[in-house]
Amino acid sequence: MSLEQFFQAIDANQDIYVQRLKEIVAIKSVSGEPEHRSDTILMGEWLLAELERLGATTKRVEPGVQKVNGRTLPLPPVVLATYGEDPAKKTVLIYGHYDVQPALKEDGWNTDPFTLTEDAEGRLLGRGASDDKGPVLGWLCALEAHQQLGRDLPVNLKFCFEGMEESGSEGLDAIIVREAHDYFRGVDCVCISDNYWLGKTKPCLTYGLRGVSYFMMSIKGPAADLHSGVFGGTVHEPMTDLVHLMSRLVDPQGRILVPGIMDQVAPLTEEEQHTYEGLEFGLSDLRGALGANTEIHANVKDILMHRWRYPSLSLHGIEGAFYAPGSKTVIPANPIGKFSIRTVPNMEPAQITQLVKDYLHAEFAKLNSKNVLEVTCDHEGRPWASSPDHWNFVAGARAVEQVFQCKPDLTREGGSIPVTLTFQDALQKNVLLLPMGACDDGAHSINEKVDRRNFIEGIKLYGAYFHELARVKTNE
Amino acid sequence: MSLEQFFQAIDANQDIYVQRLKEIVAIKSVSGEPEHRSDTILMGEWLLAELERLGATTKRVEPGVQKVNGRTLPLPPVVLATYGEDPAKKTVLIYGHYDVQPALKEDGWNTDPFTLTEDAEGRLLGRGASDDKGPVLGWLCALEAHQQLGRDLPVNLKFCFEGMEESGSEGLDAIIVREAHDYFRGVDCVCISDNYWLGKTKPCLTYGLRGVSYFMMSIKGPAADLHSGVFGGTVHEPMTDLVHLMSRLVDPQGRILVPGIMDQVAPLTEEEQHTYEGLEFGLSDLRGALGANTEIHANVKDILMHRWRYPSLSLHGIEGAFYAPGSKTVIPANPIGKFSIRTVPNMEPAQITQLVKDYLHAEFAKLNSKNVLEVTCDHEGRPWASSPDHWNFVAGARAVEQVFQCKPDLTREGGSIPVTLTFQDALQKNVLLLPMGACDDGAHSINEKVDRRNFIEGIKLYGAYFHELARVKTNE
Repeated sequence: MSLEQFFQAIDANQDIYVQRLKEIVAIKSVSGEPEHRSDTILMGEWLLAELERLGATTKRVEPGVQKVNGRTLPLPPVVLATYGEDPAKKTVLIYGHYDVQPALKEDGWNTDPFTLTEDAEGRLLGRGASDDKGPVLGWLCALEAHQQLGRDLPVNLKFCFEGMEESGSEGLDAIIVREAHDYFRGVDCVCISDNYWLGKTKPCLTYGLRGVSYFMMSIKGPAADLHSGVFGGTVHEPMTDLVHLMSRLVDPQGRILVPGIMDQVAPLTEEEQHTYEGLEFGLSDLRGALGANTEIHANVKDILMHRWRYPSLSLHGIEGAFYAPGSKTVIPANPIGKFSIRTVPNMEPAQITQLVKDYLHAEFAKLNSKNVLEVTCDHEGRPWASSPDHWNFVAGARAVEQVFQCKPDLTREGGSIPVTLTFQDALQKNVLLLPMGACDDGAHSINEKVDRRNFIEGIKLYGAYFHELARVKTNE
Repeated sequence: MSLEQFFQAIDANQDIYVQRLKEIVAIKSVSGEPEHRSDTILMGEWLLAELERLGATTKRVEPGVQKVNGRTLPLPPVVLATYGEDPAKKTVLIYGHYDVQPALKEDGWNTDPFTLTEDAEGRLLGRGASDDKGPVLGWLCALEAHQQLGRDLPVNLKFCFEGMEESGSEGLDAIIVREAHDYFRGVDCVCISDNYWLGKTKPCLTYGLRGVSYFMMSIKGPAADLHSGVFGGTVHEPMTDLVHLMSRLVDPQGRILVPGIMDQVAPLTEEEQHTYEGLEFGLSDLRGALGANTEIHANVKDILMHRWRYPSLSLHGIEGAFYAPGSKTVIPANPIGKFSIRTVPNMEPAQITQLVKDYLHAEFAKLNSKNVLEVTCDHEGRPWASSPDHWNFVAGARAVEQVFQCKPDLTREGGSIPVTLTFQDALQKNVLLLPMGACDDGAHSINEKVDRRNFIEGIKLYGAYFHELARVKTNE
């Protein structure tokens, strides 16, 4: 088949797709806000109905309930669907999420966040436009266009859309593991469209993600907060111990000071080096994103390697200390330092946690404090790195060439998308991250947008990907 | 005159005094809460009326207005009053404050905070019972008892009661300075009852207070908070710089690391050493107050010297970083570290600020960070130390012996009562701190109380102090 006809259909229908995106952006599926839990469930139901309308068979899976501040809330459904079961075709599993980050006009949005608004530059502004309602809808539009053209879809589809991604994907992992050999049986590869291009003009395929190990370091001293006038100078102050320990985790050049951690980092190969050439990224992009010239590394390779393939340690803040504007002369009784390590292959979370704990306890012993240190790992997510040579990536790259007439950037991400690893581990299938949005979409931020171009060309990309998947040889 | 008769009258009237305390505790004069500003003003008016009833001439001074969150609020009046103008008598200026800290039952109070409630142990529980409505009322009860006994007061009184003490005493200093040679002309000495005994059973006279210099240390990096997944490892993180600097201010043994500061501390004299003997204080008192055994020093002298006569540096917290429970992988863009130094004679605030700034900028330069450091001193209050040999203190000590049959502890406080220094500087007169409450009264905390014993014996103490003031020779 000629993709040209499909592309023309997408262009011809683009206002319908934008209107549909507007319809679902208006559903306030903010999973993190209990008062919008019913909206979130509604959004799941919208998808179930839409999938049914498109001829898919659906399965609504209830992950159970969640306790929030003493309230018991139902978790939004995981929407599973199957479209096509032809054993002669490959089956691709599409993952996306239909919940969104919180958004209030008062946060600084220029437009109402739940009213999709197109500006003069063709930016479609609205919460979830890019993360992740645009992509989720995009897959369905690509399917619908095939039907409207009377064209057979060259692959079988499975869908997995969740409604708790912005709130820790509660309940999802268990469902994926459970369905791996049941509902997801026969899946040949997985595609996730929930990340971003490296730049603003050139698509990318993403083959790696850093993991994250998040730590809490509690120092317990007095039974309650103290007045520094009365107790200052007479008591081991937990804050003093805490900042001493925090200062020993990482230096101002970003070097991790916990011994043993860097030893676990996979060595850089010649081949990997080459993937850092010709990317749509420059120092000015980093500076633009920072709004400052406070980069550690001057050249693009170093910057991206430190974002993608080296670990980093960030100090996020302190719970239990004074944090408000103004002055307060408190001695906090039990401050808890928060920090996390972004992990990369071949770091093993359990080992990292042990190294961190051992080091902090050894450093704490040197402080000669009578306070009590407790270090816990709040959660650990392993890094992920796939092979960009796999046929799933080959199909993705060819689809990009079909739609954008260029080779995609091969990228990793510095952050985590934990479900990627869950799918790979549970299904033992290759996972491709095939983003729709651009680097400046502002997911999680105010004025989130997806460019009309990205949305429409993204739908074409998804359709082209179906065709390239069908064509690609699995031994290529 | 025999004080015995006066003491008996106080005992006989004690339920009336407690009832009157209950009446004013019920007036929610929370100066820090705009919705209670009118109650605070009402409390000032209650005092004006009561002083008039007792035959004092009063002067209501309006300190002006205050801007709070865009609202303009009237400041509560400073209540001035004069009772007696006999040039043959000494004139003592009494200071107190009629505003209180916020209090909500939900904070953990066992009783309604604005309903004075006596428990089985004779504790009078209520917000302001000890800080400072009990003492303020006590002075008026002592005066009234003299009138009811038909006894002439042996001293002239001036009163200065403010309604903004818990909110920075806004407007007060200017009034004291202005009235120093006008309304306060002829004052021979000053007495403030707004602090606490060192222990629970033995009264004290307080002759010293530490000052405080409060600092903000801002590190500016990126234009906005960043995601640690995307930026971790590529950017100079302000939090990293901040904890490095904070760790260089003070060590876990409480030693201040800013060079030059300890050089300014007044040397310890033989004479001062002796004042640390026989005080109603033990290591167990410190541990009891801490609810922990995390003291730095083991013996009482060291503990109290480090509370009273040596400086200390406390790290209070960080504004602009992550502070909530849970985990958030943010790189804070502009965290502001808060710390303060408790200062003692002969430290000069301006010099301390310069030493701190110079040191932090020098240490920051060593970090080789591209972020920007700014250090500001938010406020500085000088330390205060009076001579406990002054006749004002001699009168106070004799009054204690009359009522409690013991010599008072001679104490300092680790905290600040800035008005003390203002009176001393503006009037050039000796100031005595003569507390009514015990160390466990819980001012600023939940379940604030004054013991009935402290309240009633405190009224006797104030009356006895008038008489001892009258008797003491000013060249003693």
